[in-house]
Amino acid sequence: MLEELKQQVLEANLALPAHHLVTFTWGNVSAVDRQQGVMVIKPSGVAYPVMTAEDMVVVELATGRVVEGSKKPSSDSDTHRVLYLAFDQIGGIVHTHSRHATIWAQAGKDLPAFGTTHADYFYGAIPCTRLMTDAEIDGRYEWETGNVIVETFHQRQLSPLDIPAVLVNAHGPFAWGKDADSAVHNAVVLEEIAYMGIFTRQLTPDVGPMQQQLLDKHYLRKHGKNAYYGQ
Amino acid sequence: MLEELKQQVLEANLALPAHHLVTFTWGNVSAVDRQQGVMVIKPSGVAYPVMTAEDMVVVELATGRVVEGSKKPSSDSDTHRVLYLAFDQIGGIVHTHSRHATIWAQAGKDLPAFGTTHADYFYGAIPCTRLMTDAEIDGRYEWETGNVIVETFHQRQLSPLDIPAVLVNAHGPFAWGKDADSAVHNAVVLEEIAYMGIFTRQLTPDVGPMQQQLLDKHYLRKHGKNAYYGQ
Amino acid sequence: MLEELKQQVLEANLALPAHHLVTFTWGNVSAVDRQQGVMVIKPSGVAYPVMTAEDMVVVELATGRVVEGSKKPSSDSDTHRVLYLAFDQIGGIVHTHSRHATIWAQAGKDLPAFGTTHADYFYGAIPCTRLMTDAEIDGRYEWETGNVIVETFHQRQLSPLDIPAVLVNAHGPFAWGKDADSAVHNAVVLEEIAYMGIFTRQLTPDVGPMQQQLLDKHYLRKHGKNAYYGQ
Amino acid sequence: MLEELKQQVLEANLALPAHHLVTFTWGNVSAVDRQQGVMVIKPSGVAYPVMTAEDMVVVELATGRVVEGSKKPSSDSDTHRVLYLAFDQIGGIVHTHSRHATIWAQAGKDLPAFGTTHADYFYGAIPCTRLMTDAEIDGRYEWETGNVIVETFHQRQLSPLDIPAVLVNAHGPFAWGKDADSAVHNAVVLEEIAYMGIFTRQLTPDVGPMQQQLLDKHYLRKHGKNAYYGQ
Repeated sequence: MLEELKQQVLEANLALPAHHLVTFTWGNVSAVDRQQGVMVIKPSGVAYPVMTAEDMVVVELATGRVVEGSKKPSSDSDTHRVLYLAFDQIGGIVHTHSRHATIWAQAGKDLPAFGTTHADYFYGAIPCTRLMTDAEIDGRYEWETGNVIVETFHQRQLSPLDIPAVLVNAHGPFAWGKDADSAVHNAVVLEEIAYMGIFTRQLTPDVGPMQQQLLDKHYLRKHGKNAYYGQ
Repeated sequence: MLEELKQQVLEANLALPAHHLVTFTWGNVSAVDRQQGVMVIKPSGVAYPVMTAEDMVVVELATGRVVEGSKKPSSDSDTHRVLYLAFDQIGGIVHTHSRHATIWAQAGKDLPAFGTTHADYFYGAIPCTRLMTDAEIDGRYEWETGNVIVETFHQRQLSPLDIPAVLVNAHGPFAWGKDADSAVHNAVVLEEIAYMGIFTRQLTPDVGPMQQQLLDKHYLRKHGKNAYYGQ
Repeated sequence: MLEELKQQVLEANLALPAHHLVTFTWGNVSAVDRQQGVMVIKPSGVAYPVMTAEDMVVVELATGRVVEGSKKPSSDSDTHRVLYLAFDQIGGIVHTHSRHATIWAQAGKDLPAFGTTHADYFYGAIPCTRLMTDAEIDGRYEWETGNVIVETFHQRQLSPLDIPAVLVNAHGPFAWGKDADSAVHNAVVLEEIAYMGIFTRQLTPDVGPMQQQLLDKHYLRKHGKNAYYGQ
Repeated sequence: MLEELKQQVLEANLALPAHHLVTFTWGNVSAVDRQQGVMVIKPSGVAYPVMTAEDMVVVELATGRVVEGSKKPSSDSDTHRVLYLAFDQIGGIVHTHSRHATIWAQAGKDLPAFGTTHADYFYGAIPCTRLMTDAEIDGRYEWETGNVIVETFHQRQLSPLDIPAVLVNAHGPFAWGKDADSAVHNAVVLEEIAYMGIFTRQLTPDVGPMQQQLLDKHYLRKHGKNAYYGQ
């Protein structure tokens, strides 16, 4: 069963360069098996063209221990673990340094919902986390990165299912979804709306977020029990 | 005969990713058969790489009823219907979330005619619709989206043949033409001039629209009875 | 002999989409045979993928008469003719609506020499022409477009060999060179420096042109009798 | 042994167009053999598609004399020599006119460390050199270009290993590394962060450099004896 998950995680990782979301080895995707209490994640610093399903690393959620695989897991593994532990309905996570989402992260700003492209996937602004403290950075840095994401969602009372992405301040985006593939899908959309947001604001510097009614309409026609988009 | 139209609509839909106008399934093209009172349109949420002519859906213009095809039509079908019913000389319609046209839509601004690239295809600014009311959004949303487009053309006394595109506020562009292929062609041009417009305004913030004389010259050398462009 | 020139002109035209300088049929390249007093130019409105050397049109420089070819020449033929007649050392001309050069043209601004990339090919700012008068636009428009380019070079005392490109106000760029291939080469460089110029000015709004000494150094190490670049 | 180095230098040069860092022949990569006191560098003005390992030119570091190869070395050879002589731990150098790094160079501005993408490769801002004097430009220009780079690192007390790139004012970037391949790698990253920096500053005009603590964390998790990134 993990073989299938490894294959999914491999394919989701390979989808990152295909969607122009990563340069070199910058980026990683994982997926979780909640019954077994493990996640499957990309190995650290391995080039995409030579990566195989066997290179995927199985990590125990509770402890961070590698339980299968000969390679070291992504250096961001602990961030993934925190997110799986805190957001119990998500199944896959992706981290990239995709250009325009990273620009918003570096600018330290939330990405407002400016239009229906955003509303089709995210039910409100994509939050940007606060800066981390020196203690957090010097401590268990990757674990604390997860914590500051979770804190952001808790403090703002956001649902990780309705807003399946975050901008880590001065760093870059994480996105997630019900599985690895849907996490990548959300990362692609995030990059697209991040691009459009930069120039929407350039054309109309005081542009506000879209009407709540329109946000509701578009989000809910694709999500929830009254959705009517797709087959 | 509808087989041929389905094939045209399929090809026009496949032209959208080829021209980098769509991501995933965002976008749809339709074409009309006015004698039979039907339109052929892309199914909702089907991926481009697996789409076939048989997937195209035939919808009755007057009622919205699916008269052929096993799939649900694009969720934007009602917008297409309104446009075909109101603009009786158009034969094809395309909707995308192409990046730069969507940026103007999200910025809530008309795209002025800044140069001859624009004037070769559009006889004046591409209008941006007013925001929709909560009642319109909560009501027959896609149908009302069509209505607000038609209202924009009527109130500003614009000819849909001379200005074959619109920016739906906080949403994205619709373009049209004499058939599906020409609608796609106009959508490509719209994206190109939308890109150039953003940075034209950046370089010269107070740039006005081009001279009327030059707009006339370029539009009319390609359109109407005195056209002399092409073979 | 014209067969060889037709082949060169065809290849130069096909180089335009390869270098991402044109969309659809927007753009044309010509080359001149000064001994025979003719130019070879792309036909009007023919798609690049189906174009052959036989489609190229031979036009008499002095009269504009088509002397060979079954198709109509590019609608911009008269502009090319004026340039060949006025700039007697150029051998090829290219016109495009390439995005960033067109942006400068639409913004109505000269493109200053901001760095050595520019200086390697252009010995000073790329001029933007004045707006054309209504009489010029309503008259022999394409011919007058050529005239306003020539006027710009004469009034500013620019050498068309040292500044092998121009921005036609509210329209787009023309570039030229010793033959069709070198004209395309200059059009590619123009697009590159036009892109960089937009964002150079964004980062440093009051940036001035580069030092004259550095402009001299880079231009002259590639051009003229003391050039030492290349094999 | 130089055959292997020539092959590496050829491959590194070919990587430049593959990473979209160069147009035409703009760009050159070299690598050094410190034992033999020579560097291997791209020939001047040769097109990438036809370049072979045999075209690479072997230049004596101390004198600039060509000791192997039938072609003239890159016109920037003397700049490479100065850098190898002054920075004794670097093994490869790359020069490009990549769009966004060149934009910062033309804008005459250092590229601040705005986020972790930068910090993963560069331990602080990428410096922009002062303008060169007329005497430097008129003298041994390419050699003096090297000198002004070295001066910048000395005056600011920067380590060329920790900041493996520079922006030459009004010109473009040089990057380096332990070998030709790692120099190209750094040039790719520089281009990426240069792009993101432009729009980071656009979104937040008063954005400052990232926290020192975070810069330390990211740089040091990939570099130095406590690095833990990769396998």
